[in-house]
Amino acid sequence: MKYWELKRPDIEQMQKDEKVVVVPLGSIEQHGAHLPIMTDSLIGGEIGERIEAALPDTVLLLPMQWLGASHHHLQFPGAISVPSSVYIDMVYHLCDCLLTAGFRRIYLLLSHGGNDVPCREALNRLALDRRDRYDYWLASGGYWAVAEEALRRPEMETARLTHACEYETAMVQHLRPELVDMDQAQGHCLEVESRYFHPNGDGPNKVHVAIPFEHLTGVGALGRPELGTPEKGRILLQAVAEQMVDFVQDFSRWKRGGSPADFPFAPAPDSGGAR
Amino acid sequence: MKYWELKRPDIEQMQKDEKVVVVPLGSIEQHGAHLPIMTDSLIGGEIGERIEAALPDTVLLLPMQWLGASHHHLQFPGAISVPSSVYIDMVYHLCDCLLTAGFRRIYLLLSHGGNDVPCREALNRLALDRRDRYDYWLASGGYWAVAEEALRRPEMETARLTHACEYETAMVQHLRPELVDMDQAQGHCLEVESRYFHPNGDGPNKVHVAIPFEHLTGVGALGRPELGTPEKGRILLQAVAEQMVDFVQDFSRWKRGGSPADFPFAPAPDSGGAR
Amino acid sequence: MKYWELKRPDIEQMQKDEKVVVVPLGSIEQHGAHLPIMTDSLIGGEIGERIEAALPDTVLLLPMQWLGASHHHLQFPGAISVPSSVYIDMVYHLCDCLLTAGFRRIYLLLSHGGNDVPCREALNRLALDRRDRYDYWLASGGYWAVAEEALRRPEMETARLTHACEYETAMVQHLRPELVDMDQAQGHCLEVESRYFHPNGDGPNKVHVAIPFEHLTGVGALGRPELGTPEKGRILLQAVAEQMVDFVQDFSRWKRGGSPADFPFAPAPDSGGAR
Amino acid sequence: MKYWELKRPDIEQMQKDEKVVVVPLGSIEQHGAHLPIMTDSLIGGEIGERIEAALPDTVLLLPMQWLGASHHHLQFPGAISVPSSVYIDMVYHLCDCLLTAGFRRIYLLLSHGGNDVPCREALNRLALDRRDRYDYWLASGGYWAVAEEALRRPEMETARLTHACEYETAMVQHLRPELVDMDQAQGHCLEVESRYFHPNGDGPNKVHVAIPFEHLTGVGALGRPELGTPEKGRILLQAVAEQMVDFVQDFSRWKRGGSPADFPFAPAPDSGGAR
Amino acid sequence: MKYWELKRPDIEQMQKDEKVVVVPLGSIEQHGAHLPIMTDSLIGGEIGERIEAALPDTVLLLPMQWLGASHHHLQFPGAISVPSSVYIDMVYHLCDCLLTAGFRRIYLLLSHGGNDVPCREALNRLALDRRDRYDYWLASGGYWAVAEEALRRPEMETARLTHACEYETAMVQHLRPELVDMDQAQGHCLEVESRYFHPNGDGPNKVHVAIPFEHLTGVGALGRPELGTPEKGRILLQAVAEQMVDFVQDFSRWKRGGSPADFPFAPAPDSGGAR
Amino acid sequence: MKYWELKRPDIEQMQKDEKVVVVPLGSIEQHGAHLPIMTDSLIGGEIGERIEAALPDTVLLLPMQWLGASHHHLQFPGAISVPSSVYIDMVYHLCDCLLTAGFRRIYLLLSHGGNDVPCREALNRLALDRRDRYDYWLASGGYWAVAEEALRRPEMETARLTHACEYETAMVQHLRPELVDMDQAQGHCLEVESRYFHPNGDGPNKVHVAIPFEHLTGVGALGRPELGTPEKGRILLQAVAEQMVDFVQDFSRWKRGGSPADFPFAPAPDSGGAR
Repeated sequence: MKYWELKRPDIEQMQKDEKVVVVPLGSIEQHGAHLPIMTDSLIGGEIGERIEAALPDTVLLLPMQWLGASHHHLQFPGAISVPSSVYIDMVYHLCDCLLTAGFRRIYLLLSHGGNDVPCREALNRLALDRRDRYDYWLASGGYWAVAEEALRRPEMETARLTHACEYETAMVQHLRPELVDMDQAQGHCLEVESRYFHPNGDGPNKVHVAIPFEHLTGVGALGRPELGTPEKGRILLQAVAEQMVDFVQDFSRWKRGGSPADFPFAPAPDSGGAR
Repeated sequence: MKYWELKRPDIEQMQKDEKVVVVPLGSIEQHGAHLPIMTDSLIGGEIGERIEAALPDTVLLLPMQWLGASHHHLQFPGAISVPSSVYIDMVYHLCDCLLTAGFRRIYLLLSHGGNDVPCREALNRLALDRRDRYDYWLASGGYWAVAEEALRRPEMETARLTHACEYETAMVQHLRPELVDMDQAQGHCLEVESRYFHPNGDGPNKVHVAIPFEHLTGVGALGRPELGTPEKGRILLQAVAEQMVDFVQDFSRWKRGGSPADFPFAPAPDSGGAR
Repeated sequence: MKYWELKRPDIEQMQKDEKVVVVPLGSIEQHGAHLPIMTDSLIGGEIGERIEAALPDTVLLLPMQWLGASHHHLQFPGAISVPSSVYIDMVYHLCDCLLTAGFRRIYLLLSHGGNDVPCREALNRLALDRRDRYDYWLASGGYWAVAEEALRRPEMETARLTHACEYETAMVQHLRPELVDMDQAQGHCLEVESRYFHPNGDGPNKVHVAIPFEHLTGVGALGRPELGTPEKGRILLQAVAEQMVDFVQDFSRWKRGGSPADFPFAPAPDSGGAR
Repeated sequence: MKYWELKRPDIEQMQKDEKVVVVPLGSIEQHGAHLPIMTDSLIGGEIGERIEAALPDTVLLLPMQWLGASHHHLQFPGAISVPSSVYIDMVYHLCDCLLTAGFRRIYLLLSHGGNDVPCREALNRLALDRRDRYDYWLASGGYWAVAEEALRRPEMETARLTHACEYETAMVQHLRPELVDMDQAQGHCLEVESRYFHPNGDGPNKVHVAIPFEHLTGVGALGRPELGTPEKGRILLQAVAEQMVDFVQDFSRWKRGGSPADFPFAPAPDSGGAR
Repeated sequence: MKYWELKRPDIEQMQKDEKVVVVPLGSIEQHGAHLPIMTDSLIGGEIGERIEAALPDTVLLLPMQWLGASHHHLQFPGAISVPSSVYIDMVYHLCDCLLTAGFRRIYLLLSHGGNDVPCREALNRLALDRRDRYDYWLASGGYWAVAEEALRRPEMETARLTHACEYETAMVQHLRPELVDMDQAQGHCLEVESRYFHPNGDGPNKVHVAIPFEHLTGVGALGRPELGTPEKGRILLQAVAEQMVDFVQDFSRWKRGGSPADFPFAPAPDSGGAR
Repeated sequence: MKYWELKRPDIEQMQKDEKVVVVPLGSIEQHGAHLPIMTDSLIGGEIGERIEAALPDTVLLLPMQWLGASHHHLQFPGAISVPSSVYIDMVYHLCDCLLTAGFRRIYLLLSHGGNDVPCREALNRLALDRRDRYDYWLASGGYWAVAEEALRRPEMETARLTHACEYETAMVQHLRPELVDMDQAQGHCLEVESRYFHPNGDGPNKVHVAIPFEHLTGVGALGRPELGTPEKGRILLQAVAEQMVDFVQDFSRWKRGGSPADFPFAPAPDSGGAR
């Protein structure tokens, strides 16, 4: 179901326990010289629609939220963004409204890396404020993480999805070829000699490193975007969507342990309870 | 132009002085039992697209921002909203990014009444924080206000556009008839005997009255939605769009008084200047 | 009654249902070279006192709150102001205390335009936080809006009240002639060619435009202050006060629709209810 | 000078170096059953006016700010207050505007104990934000502290000024006898056996103890208000005012150590300097 | 008891009514050229441990919190600090957790002057938020205030403890002599001719004066640190610790007046109660 | 070096470019019935000290910061915590002070999982606010992530380190055996049937799931704590410390790409630059 097309009585009368609200969270910011600024919103929106199309009874799809946390790109012109502190509040209240309406399974479908930390933080805050209930599930994750296996394909020539890279380029080439300028496709990344930090995606990151995007690259794109092709994009999207559908089905069946009475811990002595 | 389809170099190279960035700001919240929850976003999105279609060289259209300030509707299920304090921050930063990118004329096209006060507040704050420049114009206004004359039509049987009323119903009937359930179309409004306050739209409001929506109506719709027809909706949308285009043209030509040097006031004695 | 002269038992024992608390909200900021910085507080304070004098049993008058939201004037020296974000909090808590004390009708009597948007925002927030009660009325409005008709008088040579203009000058000339320097009375306003925006008061504003005051005028006064006379001021104040009294009587009789049980909407499914 | 009566050119042309801006900060909250709720604002306002009358060339007096931090009294009806967090912001910006206008000596004249801690906090924050200048003085203090010696008089039968006590009662009896109901004058205070804490004023407090007012007293007044007389009030006010004038003269002559160049400390290595 | 060594069941089963939680709050910031930056944390930590050693059954000692409010020192390198606004929140929540766990007597043992105002503010806020209970005691105070008498000793050649002075120097000489460089011991303070303000400790301060530390001194130390000796430090610490133990015993026996029912004041009319 | 033992001149004169400031960030919260509440601070503190001991010239060690973000544990008594919003501010300013003092490599050594998201958020914010410099490195990571390989040892019988589990129990048994009550060692975890989420550590988590700790377990411990032995703890700590030393050496040599001039991107058109 498309959430936005519902009327109030549709929501009032819906059986909500196993429904999954899918919230596609994208962004608008520069993606090198060759990709449109809506790249992340385009890809995430497409994945969201494919999930909803595959699971129309289970899924309530929200409209793509294109305003994300991209201030690390703001030195380049084009980004429309809120600071992460504001983004945390946006996501918190968006989800809080869904819980208030009676929904109990919310999945934040991320297609922009900068939204990841603030979304975790927002859900953490919300889970605590709603800790008096035992029947909700709040999950957040980038499609690159949930569908990590799906992205590991023999067609791909670079190891990992980063920003405006082979992967993203390919998917936009497939979806909106007229908006891609492959003549301008060029990637660059600061090289750091380390066994623990690999900003260009050629190895795992054992630590979180905070760094403005213009310090990483002067061209605004990482990886090797010139390797993108529409066919790679078609294959990637199909594989990712399939795994995302699998995840949402999995998620729709998680069970919480029951009521507070099932838990033998001593209640906090203060009548005010947990804060 | 559609802002989201641009690439970074498009923005870097654009001559921005007389461009108008049109920011459609809608909402998702209950609209009685007969209209879809996306009503305000649907109408505002349509108006935005018609403006852009009429003035493709002047206008940069942003995607509809459907997350609005609808907490006054939250007692009814369905609203997805942020508190007005968060909405102020969202709008502030959205516009701040546009000024940072070099745009100088921003118009917030409102199609949800609850966004009005926070948008004014957001622009007021931004104007002060950017007061060292003399070359920007920040404007905000509901289509019902900008195109007030266009809405006064002989076809309409009620006096003013309110919420889920004859006007909104008609426009959704025209745009998405399959989403309207006219059997459920019913309006109700608290009656207040006053010469200064007319919540149901049958007279002007001389004071601002703050009131949760469920205190105004138990059915979530004001006015007389049952009077809506697709034809009224078609006529309204055309008339509104025409006047909105007229406004945007007007707006694109406003001139500021020049540089600070043209102003003979005494500088503040403190070297820090205004705060 | 003057609120500040009461003792605690007076408030405890008072029958509060139809009392109207009148909260005069002014400011201190430059008013051109010819008027004192307290102009708005002086005029609003006078109007408040006349209302209380006319309706001593109905009205509880608060002392003039002279600290307002005038940061748009701060480039000129003299303003004592808080940012609008702080002003919202001030007004919110001021009114919240009145509701806590048991008062149920609050009218914010504005005499400074810059307080308008933050007062609306403050009341909107408060109404939602108190939505569990159905027996309060929160209203806000400038005397120029409530008594708009009273201000349209044949004696006046300019169309609308703005800042440090013919109207304000006249009223201060009547009230405190020794504080006015008519030799310095001079107005100026940026001229904008528009059918939708008239900063100098010679037409309606269809959009809200955010602009620091020094961008509008180098002399800090709009309109034609040199046209002010004490006699015009005397006439204006009398007419305005009469209409304000009429409004307060009207306001004291508004009725809310009863208890929540009168409203047939479905309760939100979440036990936490609306947020 | 009365600040509010000035015009903008008066402020622009004033020699500001040794002027002292006196900011009377009071409150509105219950003062037992016998005193008016404006007691603190009344007393502080009177002291402020006497200071200004004695030193008209040195002093710029602001209007009494009656909205204070009295939430600890809010359990009793009548208080109009902002939380201390908001009060800190109010005072911060009020003083910041004065520095922006070019004033360099600000004294916060407190007549309500609850304003003491937030005023210290506000000035501490402002001093750091303005640390690039070496020419301002920011001071805050209750009249009971500055004029501590003046309050120690043989006529007084209790040891210290507290709340709605012998001292405050006497001063209001002198200033506005018609607002005092001595039949209701009654004080009470929780008795704590301690060598370090004396809430009723019969000994010094070696620690700060945070406690809502209703936990201290069920009658809302401390000390022995029944001992107040108008004559005591007359004597107290005269003595206090004299010492306050002495303080303001003293304050007007304090000198800062000069420019940063006079200080031999090493600059912080970071080009951003102190934060 | 050392709080940090406890297990959850220890806390669950403890009889908490008369326990005193001692919270040592220090700082890290420059202390002239001769003392280590941890001076305040070192001294406060030592005092805390001595209190716990003397009263192991009554006291629950928390670990020294070394992150304090030292932004007024930040112009000198070395301080690790949070702004006072953040410090208020830290202390508020630290204490709130203790109340939630069931503890009812909390004493903030301050060894850094900059923590004093924010700690008062934090406890004031907490006391109001917890005003529905009548069984807690929240106290805050520097050891220099609680043990004021103990510090007045014939051995000391200067009048009062300030910053990096004779007193602090002596105590660090006793505790960690290898970290003191007496060759660099040098104090300096701006001289202000005043009867009301004595920044160098040679008289009482009748007003609070807000001033960045580098405006007071170019060497980062006040008073006469060169007079410090290890023996003075040994004597001071012993005397201070003894008086602190006396205070904590006193504090452990304070009694609140009972339940709300003992208080005859009228409940606030609003069902929401105090805010 | 131990940061807290330094004097101001030590910091002023230090060559800071390749120094690594190690900031151990722990917590105090329940760790089941068998481990002390300081478990995370104990383990992280130990690791920090071993790093400093191995690299005394490179490392500046800060004192363990024991106040962490543990509100998800607060339903169990004992936690002393700040909400994550406050923790973000604490960490932000702590690191900001270090940058102000001239340090350029900061590593947040986490030993409590709840600190992970807020530390990422804090560093992200700081990196943007300091984006005008190109010479700093900000990194954050739990020892379980940095030393992931070191933790995979044949001695361990469970797959991953979680909370109060075999791993943590073993390390505390080694460090402070007298504080461990193995009779109470018991773990429990909500079982969720999923291929994407494994709260008990028996598989990877592909999504972030927000959940209060008492919803996961009624005993406050995960995994199999009863399998801990002091010998396992000794081995783990040695292996972890060795890998952490390796990371810090690696980190001390990372190079940034040079000055802004090396980057060919177009500057943002707005003179204000990035926000």
